[in-house]
Amino acid sequence: MLIAVDWGTSSLRVARLDDAGRAIEEREFARGILTVPAGGFAQVFEQACGDWMRQPGALALICGMAGSRQGWMEAPYAACPAGLEALASGLTWIAPGRIAIVPGLALERDGIPDVIRGEETKAIGVLQASGASSATIVMPGTHCKWVRARHGRIESFATFMTGEFYALLRQHSILGRTMAEGPFDRDAFLRGLDHAGRSGNLLHAAFSARTLSLFERLPPQAGPSYLSGLLVGEELRSQRPGGHDSVILVGAEKLTLPYGAALDHLGLPCRTLGQEATWLGLHAIASHMGNPS
Amino acid sequence: MLIAVDWGTSSLRVARLDDAGRAIEEREFARGILTVPAGGFAQVFEQACGDWMRQPGALALICGMAGSRQGWMEAPYAACPAGLEALASGLTWIAPGRIAIVPGLALERDGIPDVIRGEETKAIGVLQASGASSATIVMPGTHCKWVRARHGRIESFATFMTGEFYALLRQHSILGRTMAEGPFDRDAFLRGLDHAGRSGNLLHAAFSARTLSLFERLPPQAGPSYLSGLLVGEELRSQRPGGHDSVILVGAEKLTLPYGAALDHLGLPCRTLGQEATWLGLHAIASHMGNPS
Repeated sequence: MLIAVDWGTSSLRVARLDDAGRAIEEREFARGILTVPAGGFAQVFEQACGDWMRQPGALALICGMAGSRQGWMEAPYAACPAGLEALASGLTWIAPGRIAIVPGLALERDGIPDVIRGEETKAIGVLQASGASSATIVMPGTHCKWVRARHGRIESFATFMTGEFYALLRQHSILGRTMAEGPFDRDAFLRGLDHAGRSGNLLHAAFSARTLSLFERLPPQAGPSYLSGLLVGEELRSQRPGGHDSVILVGAEKLTLPYGAALDHLGLPCRTLGQEATWLGLHAIASHMGNPS
Repeated sequence: MLIAVDWGTSSLRVARLDDAGRAIEEREFARGILTVPAGGFAQVFEQACGDWMRQPGALALICGMAGSRQGWMEAPYAACPAGLEALASGLTWIAPGRIAIVPGLALERDGIPDVIRGEETKAIGVLQASGASSATIVMPGTHCKWVRARHGRIESFATFMTGEFYALLRQHSILGRTMAEGPFDRDAFLRGLDHAGRSGNLLHAAFSARTLSLFERLPPQAGPSYLSGLLVGEELRSQRPGGHDSVILVGAEKLTLPYGAALDHLGLPCRTLGQEATWLGLHAIASHMGNPS
């Protein structure tokens, strides 16, 4: 039986999968790696899915930040481009034959490294779910990852700190002072998106949230959506999907909804998948080891 | 006698000027407008320079955020382009004939407003000090302002939130976690500058501070200079001075030094002026009212 584990910075999700990679049972815990003291990972793992692990033939595959230096055990990055075989052969075993961590991927562009951990697994799952062998896969979040897949392999990727910049500006900057919480405001979002695209410079474009508010041309409740539009617009400005690619958004609806609105506004149709992509990816990696059961 | 007052967000500076606009005596107080309760401005002003104001013919001209909605009295923005005459005729009088606030400037570009308060006065002073009638004037700070002067007038300007983004990322982001305080590291600064220029997208380029540190290719003490280079590089990427302009940097040395290094690295020679530009600007405005001494 395959036990799929998605262990990120802020949450821990586990699932028992059937032979097709679908979850039979799922559990979620607020036990991201930041909440786990050094040496405490085995215990949290036991609490999360120790009962499942006592089934005969149980195999746990873990992806995400649990493989980082601050995680359970550091799993070296595999080099990108990489396919299923590189991920399956690059596992770091915590308990031989029973618990392993999927490697993250690293690449270098103009002398600067970039890394993903967990998104490589999700991208493999997206290819499985969509039946596509090539795609531009966008995974919004604190650090949004753009993954390009070609011929069933992960060809390249890039990280954008969009979610973290949003939180910083919303919570700690002068821009947040004239904002109030409100529902997602599509018009304000697209207004920010368009301005970021025209401006071409986030350090300048961001100040528009201040001046529009100063001249009472941006209501406080529309401020957060406008700011979100500025940031997503800045990201999309330099990261347009290629003409032949299918664009696939992956993530929770709260995150994929604004990206979907942005891509639609820019004439770039996309599909959306949920977090089940991670389970499909872990299942595909396990199948490639020839050891799923 | 002209009493020049530069009343900003975080500090209050006052000076008695001679007939040439040079400071005879200067005082500085940690009484920026954010520290002054509503209705408390007259009292702080009295403490700062009440003795000077009791001299016969004393005139105080104030520039900066004291003219904002959160300041002593809101001074409406004058429209940009604007020259000395627009500033001198746009004064908001707090005490007729004795205390006035210089208007900030506002402009609109692609339907988005931009504003300055205080930098218009400094720019006028720069023209006085340099003898130039045209220049690109760069004023680093929390919000860095680029002011273009032509034929003695302020033709346009643009705001970049460079200093504020630096502080947010240094203090509150994941990038700051692997940084330690250190002296200005010119090599690390220029490395960040070049990367930002090549990358063309701050949301992506910023992540390099994380990955370089992760792969132990950026020492913790070099982190702040590298981050500063990323941000100044992002600013300069879209804001190259015109070929015929003299570029003049204005501000405290701590702020102008990295910008000077950046402009030098990009082959754009510049001159540097200190905060005395504000006194010269206020003196020029007072002279234009025909009411200095």
